[in-house]
Amino acid sequence: MNNKTGNSRNKRNIKLVLEYDGSGYAGWQRQGFTTGKRSVQNILEECTAKYLDENIKIIGSGRTDAGVHALGQVANFPCISSQSVEAMKKNINILLPEDIKILDMQEVDKEFHSRYSAKAKTYEYRIDQGRVPSVFSRKYTCHVPVPLNMDAMKKASACFAGTHDFKAFSTDRKNGKSTVRTIENIDIYRYARQRYGKPANEIRIKITGDGFLYNMVRIMTGTLLEIGQGIRCPEDVIEILKGKNRQHAGITVSSQGLFLLGVRY
Amino acid sequence: MNNKTGNSRNKRNIKLVLEYDGSGYAGWQRQGFTTGKRSVQNILEECTAKYLDENIKIIGSGRTDAGVHALGQVANFPCISSQSVEAMKKNINILLPEDIKILDMQEVDKEFHSRYSAKAKTYEYRIDQGRVPSVFSRKYTCHVPVPLNMDAMKKASACFAGTHDFKAFSTDRKNGKSTVRTIENIDIYRYARQRYGKPANEIRIKITGDGFLYNMVRIMTGTLLEIGQGIRCPEDVIEILKGKNRQHAGITVSSQGLFLLGVRY
Repeated sequence: MNNKTGNSRNKRNIKLVLEYDGSGYAGWQRQGFTTGKRSVQNILEECTAKYLDENIKIIGSGRTDAGVHALGQVANFPCISSQSVEAMKKNINILLPEDIKILDMQEVDKEFHSRYSAKAKTYEYRIDQGRVPSVFSRKYTCHVPVPLNMDAMKKASACFAGTHDFKAFSTDRKNGKSTVRTIENIDIYRYARQRYGKPANEIRIKITGDGFLYNMVRIMTGTLLEIGQGIRCPEDVIEILKGKNRQHAGITVSSQGLFLLGVRY
Repeated sequence: MNNKTGNSRNKRNIKLVLEYDGSGYAGWQRQGFTTGKRSVQNILEECTAKYLDENIKIIGSGRTDAGVHALGQVANFPCISSQSVEAMKKNINILLPEDIKILDMQEVDKEFHSRYSAKAKTYEYRIDQGRVPSVFSRKYTCHVPVPLNMDAMKKASACFAGTHDFKAFSTDRKNGKSTVRTIENIDIYRYARQRYGKPANEIRIKITGDGFLYNMVRIMTGTLLEIGQGIRCPEDVIEILKGKNRQHAGITVSSQGLFLLGVRY
């Protein structure tokens, strides 16, 4: 790669929407060369830099953990290339591996920043309720073959809506930053499909909020699953929020059932 | 494993319905130890024999090639175990890898033979029509990002219906057996899903017949795809059938888009 860097003020700002299967990656964030693990950001920067023949730093709307998938991750990067976004999208997609693809690419205002400009994000957690785990969604669901009380889960989810301190629902990184977040919407629904002529239900928990703490969706889901099984009651959510103690919330469910659906600006 | 074999006449006959992701396998059929490749039949026999602690030979309804998937493969095996089918299903599924699962298990008449008793099979070929190949169905579709004329494909598919000599639509194995087969039904339809808020179509070709020659569905699909692109016209199918020459038919499309949906008895 040559040494083109340019002045950021004179560069174009390119926004992209990405789909990726997180199964094979150490997550979104760029990794040091010592870890030996690939990250989505690493691969994307390499392929973009290779095609545009300039140094590229890609800014994501946020990190997704190892194993988490995206149907609509948003990122942006400054570049000096004068290539059309159509040509960039087509050619970078050819360089990208089959588990990361650019769905949309647009030139945007220089002020656009995929992380700081984000107004809300939507995540979805997918739970395979089949007695026998599904072969085809094994990497995209968490298998929970016990009956779940959807009414109790919905009642509990209503307690999450609004602005709360979600400290109890995060893995503390001791950085002293605010743990207050606003949940706009939580929808818990059955996604029905047929499996050898019989219904094969998934339960999906879709959450939109202005931001999410580390592991927040996975701990909220873990708590809702315990409520669905009757291990806790829906009202416990209020107490857990108040207590601000991670130990009082449910387990952190596995990353493979989690999807970043989209980011709103 | 111990040396229990028993007399086949005194054995129970167990029928099973299987789901598998063919991506990681050398196909259905048992492989010699020298090939180094796993087959679905190998794995299934090993796990069943291990759990039941007796020698097990599993008979499939037919072979699926390397990379072909199954949503409803049927197989059967004789055994001396007196275990309930519920216990067998549950415990063999625990031993099986996550890409092969038993969906149903039943004790059947001693006369039942998953291959000889089969009346019809249904296969489906899935074509990803998105301009950018789908990350999540990359192993379960063939990516064909060019426009396809569905009307022409449907017209051509009607020529396959009924009883014909399908020699031109098979990879000749020079075994002198009949190449006449009856196609009961071909359905070509769009399977619509959403992809980042936009329609992401798949075209699916579903074929039911009394039997299929080697590579027959894949060559039929390859021919239909050429017709869909206007490279051939629908009426060509009649001439290709008459000519009985493999060279006149279309290409053999990749195995990864092919699913065995089910077997009728």
